[in-house]
Parts: sequence; structure tokens; C-alpha cells
Amino acid sequence: MKNKLTILGAGSWGTTLAVVLSAKKELDITLWSAFKEHALSLQKYRQNKDFLPSVKIPSSIEITADLRTALNSKIIVLAIPVEYLRSVLKRVKKYKSGRKIFVSVSKGIEIKTLKRPSQIVREELGRVSFAVLSGPTIARELARGVPTTAVICSKNKRTAVYLQEIFSLGIFRIYRNNDIAGVELGGALKNIIAIACGISDGLGFGTNTKSALICRGLKEMVRFAKHFGAKEKTLFGISGLGDLATTCFSDLSRNHFVGVQIARGKKLKAVLSGMKMVAEGITTVKSVYSLSTKLNIYMPITQQVYSVLYKNKSPLQAVKDLMQREKKPE
Amino acid sequence: MKNKLTILGAGSWGTTLAVVLSAKKELDITLWSAFKEHALSLQKYRQNKDFLPSVKIPSSIEITADLRTALNSKIIVLAIPVEYLRSVLKRVKKYKSGRKIFVSVSKGIEIKTLKRPSQIVREELGRVSFAVLSGPTIARELARGVPTTAVICSKNKRTAVYLQEIFSLGIFRIYRNNDIAGVELGGALKNIIAIACGISDGLGFGTNTKSALICRGLKEMVRFAKHFGAKEKTLFGISGLGDLATTCFSDLSRNHFVGVQIARGKKLKAVLSGMKMVAEGITTVKSVYSLSTKLNIYMPITQQVYSVLYKNKSPLQAVKDLMQREKKPE
Repeated sequence: MKNKLTILGAGSWGTTLAVVLSAKKELDITLWSAFKEHALSLQKYRQNKDFLPSVKIPSSIEITADLRTALNSKIIVLAIPVEYLRSVLKRVKKYKSGRKIFVSVSKGIEIKTLKRPSQIVREELGRVSFAVLSGPTIARELARGVPTTAVICSKNKRTAVYLQEIFSLGIFRIYRNNDIAGVELGGALKNIIAIACGISDGLGFGTNTKSALICRGLKEMVRFAKHFGAKEKTLFGISGLGDLATTCFSDLSRNHFVGVQIARGKKLKAVLSGMKMVAEGITTVKSVYSLSTKLNIYMPITQQVYSVLYKNKSPLQAVKDLMQREKKPE
Repeated sequence: MKNKLTILGAGSWGTTLAVVLSAKKELDITLWSAFKEHALSLQKYRQNKDFLPSVKIPSSIEITADLRTALNSKIIVLAIPVEYLRSVLKRVKKYKSGRKIFVSVSKGIEIKTLKRPSQIVREELGRVSFAVLSGPTIARELARGVPTTAVICSKNKRTAVYLQEIFSLGIFRIYRNNDIAGVELGGALKNIIAIACGISDGLGFGTNTKSALICRGLKEMVRFAKHFGAKEKTLFGISGLGDLATTCFSDLSRNHFVGVQIARGKKLKAVLSGMKMVAEGITTVKSVYSLSTKLNIYMPITQQVYSVLYKNKSPLQAVKDLMQREKKPE
């Protein structure tokens, strides 16, 4: 019997997951868009023109904007930007019935509550089967067949093993993990460091600089995440370091792009108004900055990114301040 | 009083260090080339045409091919490819007198003995003051003023603090560390993973793939290094992960370049015959492969790189074999 899997959210990542998983004959896939016109356009053109141009959406994928229909699957993938996740879940709650497994693939922290996707799901849906899928997964790369890895993370080992099988493909290698806080925080925090790397590139610096930002950025990510119960090991793995490296070095990263534009003198508002997609680091840095200040967690790179984005600090001065701190052990 | 510092070896890194350190008024710098004609060319053109084109060598730097003169400094930086280090040290031993501090900046493992630079120095010079300087330091980037970090590593804390001061510059931030095995092994092993990343790029894959190679590569680097007494923490720092990231992502990395060429169908011999500089990963992978096999340390990426370089394995098959191993936890 086929497993039914629905992806809620037809952005670039949701669409990519639908397309690559549709290669598995044992899966029956539905892709839900929150917007009726968008669903109609996907149906008509079998292409996601705005978010994943020139990738064909196979006819075997059912496309719908009707949430009740979409929820008629055992596995529900949540591919919704964190800021909209709660409102979608409130609607999901009304329609859902029977046992389901929810898989979050959203990265970020809800700005008003400072909550992670797993916490939002818990608050809105209660105690459901839950997992997170995260890693260095630039959507357009996976969509064109580039070998990619990710982590499936669940407190329940059986759920993790089951989903590992569901998501594994020849070009998509899935590892298991059970540290939800670690995986979610890695995926959220890395966007701050990616903005820093974008700033560095925008200033004309090199890979020496970016590698330093990655190393020292990972240190402060670990400090922050451990405070919330995450394991250091997870941050150094696929969903932490791996995602960090890809986001810092890929030209396709939106957070990196924001950093480059800022370094070239654009104002944040102007950069954001020109972008179709969400650059989650922009809000994450706000949340993390205020939390780290309150909790007294030393995060020098986050602090500088915050000052550049929101306090008009000159990017060059921020780099200088980072380089010329007190000399210390590693 | 000025501190006298000599750099033995006028390759790209040795020359770069001489040039950037010459900005410090309190240092008196000598650059030694093993080759008389090379020293004369450096003196005449004040440029290292082969290894660091279009960077001016200030007149304050003394250039010599006379080892006795060169050794008339308190700090001796060893910027010599590992394969030639021992023979140079045998000559150093004859001339050296007085207390000196030796700073190794060579990365790699001596192929015949499987020894690291610190061990070679110990064998040839006995118990001398010793440190290692290592990190994500693409020479041409630092030479053009790109902000760069590195680690100075010594068992002796006073030596480390002293050298941290000597090497620190506005654009060159130095951290201290005391794990020599960890720093040296990180600098050597990363070249193997860089070849793997070059192969991935040569096959047309993306940053998702390279980030996976970096994460999983770091795991096997840690497994190997711990066996030789290194600390995991060091491998995850500037001289391990940092150097790994820069080598995997920079177009200027020679090891990465070798991988790209191999993936495009060139034979190893042909690639090497076209290169002026040493790609140390080529020999390191041999040593590490044989050691890890003997000691039963699981290193799947190293194994595949070895098979591609020395057993004619198809690069694409190597990637497939890596992606389709048994499904497991992270």
C-alpha cells in the first residue's frame, strides 16, 4: 500500500521535496499551497515559476489549496515560514483526524514568542508524532539532482527510523538524530552567520575571512544552543555546521545575499523590498540578540550583525571590532 | 630592541608571512630561499614571480640563500614543504647556536616515516622551543589584506603568548592553543577532504554536497586524530574546521584543484606535471589510508579518495558508494 504524504507550503523547499520524493513509487504526494491562485498556477503550468523556476512538477503530485483534502495523509510535512506556521496550524487543528506524523522543515524562531517550530506545534496541536528534517539543503540544488544530506530528528526512535526510510533517495542521504533543540537552533542560528559572511563578501574579503566567521560563529551558536538544552555534537553535525557551511558559501542563499547588499551600502528596507523570498536571519538576529543580551551569552558576531542591520553601524567597523578584540585562547 | 625573525622557505606562504609581518616596525625580517637563483631573483625584482606574483616585497626584508646568515635570528619560521623539512633541519643543526624558537607553518605528514613536522623537528633538533602556526590562511588572500585568523600552538604557554603578540596584526587575528597533534593533524587531513570536494565540484555537484563532505569529513578527521592523542575540540576549531572550510571552498586551493581535474577525467600524473606547487593531500591520503586500514579507523571519504586517485575508481561511482551506505544515526 502506498504511503500518503502531504507537504503544506509550496515555496521552493516544499515544492522541491514534493518533486524529488515523487520519484518514489511507494509514496502518494500532495502539495498544498496556502493561496488558491498559486495552486491554480502550479496545476496549470506544472511549474513553480516564482520559487523554483524550470523544474517540472510531475503529474502524479496532487496540487490543492484545500486544507481538508490536503490533510488526508499520514505524513504531514510543514514547509511553512516560521512566522506563518502558527496560523496554519490553527487551521490544521480544525480539520485533522486520525494518527498523523508531522515533519517540520521550517527554519527559524517565531519573533514575538521566541519559540521554535517544535514548540509551536506542541502548543497548537498538542502531543503529536513529530520530527524535524534539516540540513545543508539548498532547494534548487537538490531539485537538479545534486547529492544532498540531511538529518531526520525525532525523540521517538521508531518514528525517526520510519521517516529515514521515507525520505531517503539515491541523491538524498538521511541521518538520524534525536536532539530537536539542537537541530532547530542550528538551522535558525546559522542564518545570522550567513549574513555576516555576506557582509564579508560584500566588502571584498575572502574565504579566509568566511572560514573564520564559520568557526567562531559555530562557537557562539553552540554557546547559545547549549543554554536551551541542545547537544554540542548536533551543532557540529549535518544540521548545524553542514547547513552553516552551505548557507555561508552558496550564492543561492538569501541571508548571504542580504549581507552582500548591506555591505555595498544598501539600506535593509530597500534590500527586503526587492526580495520575493524570506531571509529568516533578519528576524532571527533580533530574537537572538535580545535573548543573548538578557541571558548574558557572549555572541560577538551576532552582536555586530545586529548593530550593522539595526543600528547603522558601518560594516567595515564591525569587522575591525571583531578582529581587534582582546587576544585569547581558542 | 627589534626582534629578529627569519622565515626559512620562500614559497607563497613564507613570502606572504615575510611581507605582512614586515609591517610591524618592531620586527627585523629575513627571508631565506633554499635556492640561490631564487634568492637573487627575489632581491632583484622584489617580487616572488612564481609563488606570489604582483605582491611587492619591501626593501626592509633581508633576502638570502645563506643558511648561516639566516639563522642569526631568535625566531625561526619553518615554511618548508614537509617532504623537504628534514633535510633542511639537518643543515640547520650544523649552524644553529643560542636559544631559538622554531615555528612550523608546514602542513602535512612525511610520507616515508608518517611523522608530523613537530616530530621531525624533535628528531632532528632535539628539545627546542617549538610552536605551530596554522589556520585558514590562503596566502594570496592574506597578502592582499583580507582579514584572516590562525592558531599559534605550543605546549609552553609563555611561548604561545609571546608568539601570539609577534604574529598578531590588524588583519591577522591569532588565537592560542596547546594541542600540537590536533593542530598538525587538522592541517594535514583537511587536504584529503579538499580533494574530495574538488572531485564533487568537477562532477558538477553543489554546495549541498561539499557541506556534507565537510561535516562527514570532519567526523573521520576527528576519529583519526583522536587516535594520536589530539583533542576533538581542536579539530572543530580554526586550524581544523576553519582550514578545512577554506581549502574546500577556495578556488585558490591546490588540493581542490587536483580533485576537479581528476573528476574531469585527467590522470593524476598529468595533473601533477602541470603544477608548480605541491598539493600535499596527494601524499597525505596515501599515508592516512594505509594507517587507517592498519589501525582499523573507519574513514569512508579517505578510502574513496584513495581509490579514485590510486585505484582508477570512477569518481561518480565513489560518490554513489558514499551516498548509499547503510542508513544510520548521525
